[in-house]
Amino acid sequence: MTQTGIRLAVSTVIFSLRRHGGDTRPTVVLPLVRRTRDPHEGRWALPGGWLGAEENLEVAASRTLRETTDLSPSYLEQLYAFGDADRSPSRVVSIVYWALVREDISRTASPHNVAWFDATALPRLAFDHNQIVEYALWRLRNKVGYSRIAHGLLDDEFSLAELREVYEAILDRRLDPANFRRQVENSGTLIPTEAFRTGSHRPARLYRYNHDVELADRGPLPHRVFLKEPS
Amino acid sequence: MTQTGIRLAVSTVIFSLRRHGGDTRPTVVLPLVRRTRDPHEGRWALPGGWLGAEENLEVAASRTLRETTDLSPSYLEQLYAFGDADRSPSRVVSIVYWALVREDISRTASPHNVAWFDATALPRLAFDHNQIVEYALWRLRNKVGYSRIAHGLLDDEFSLAELREVYEAILDRRLDPANFRRQVENSGTLIPTEAFRTGSHRPARLYRYNHDVELADRGPLPHRVFLKEPS
Repeated sequence: MTQTGIRLAVSTVIFSLRRHGGDTRPTVVLPLVRRTRDPHEGRWALPGGWLGAEENLEVAASRTLRETTDLSPSYLEQLYAFGDADRSPSRVVSIVYWALVREDISRTASPHNVAWFDATALPRLAFDHNQIVEYALWRLRNKVGYSRIAHGLLDDEFSLAELREVYEAILDRRLDPANFRRQVENSGTLIPTEAFRTGSHRPARLYRYNHDVELADRGPLPHRVFLKEPS
Repeated sequence: MTQTGIRLAVSTVIFSLRRHGGDTRPTVVLPLVRRTRDPHEGRWALPGGWLGAEENLEVAASRTLRETTDLSPSYLEQLYAFGDADRSPSRVVSIVYWALVREDISRTASPHNVAWFDATALPRLAFDHNQIVEYALWRLRNKVGYSRIAHGLLDDEFSLAELREVYEAILDRRLDPANFRRQVENSGTLIPTEAFRTGSHRPARLYRYNHDVELADRGPLPHRVFLKEPS
């Protein structure tokens, strides 16, 4: 059977954290690319592109993300396939991935047509991309509760206050520091190191994730994509 | 940009329960369709077909499932897009849905080239369909823990023993009846009715799901697919 007129694209929602000016609390941000052609010329859109004829899905997601934003995340996960017949003037099914990058990486210079936006204060985007970001945020918020997903936004070693800030940014609410400490200490997912964060505050012990703990959210797929070893 | 040679299919993994012969404990089963043409002629495969040019993804999943198996589930959820370049002799990206049907519906006559298989004892299937079923089972097992997904396999009213049997079939292990009762009673997701199941055993009170409880796994997508009202 032939199938005409349906094209396959891949796009990626890649979240990072950003501290704005005097505000030391980070917020969740993502990069968007300004479209230079119709449809939706001038609108902001998710980084992405067409699937190559011989290309695996996650390789296409990684390639198009790199080509549009210069970003190379260590971890990509498939989010959802968006395929409503009316989501674009021509028929395009978009398979969307999501990823996280640390703030120091997302702060490196972006190509001139790329800008970072607060995830919860987006303009009207091209196509159904507002809906896609909303879904990715929902997945991120659900996932942070039962996985080490916050690791993708942190250095290898981090203080409990830094980890809590990541949770607060993702969940968009304040968490009680004592409760948070108790919960992560009881979870068995963190290992204390001998290092301390020093600065204007009392020195804070640094932790790292315990990679021996099996996480429930990885799934059995061999293509669960670690393009590089998680850094 | 043109894109040649990539076709889009939809397939559905639809689980049900089956009690075999003298064994009263149900097991998880799914319907497969015997392929009548190459590639993989004669092998069993998931029900599915090609995405129509003007057709939304979930509509295509529902249509192809009905055309191949006569089944019309009340609930379909997108599972994953499988798109490895080498998964088929020609390039096919399959967007896979999953669904549940009650045993009484799955026991109605199937078309002659359809058969029901134990989910954990499948033959070698066409394409990467063994891997797809494995992933769908993993999703089902994860999801049953924090949602009312078991409802899709039960009548509107059910005893706690019947609910526990569903959990045991999905998780493929026995659960302690007293612990199970305590957990579901504490969850707030069940409402006791005034009806009782009578038969060879002591009469057992029937329950129904509390649809006022918001479940965390529904997500914000408007196309979260209830093709019909859940029955």
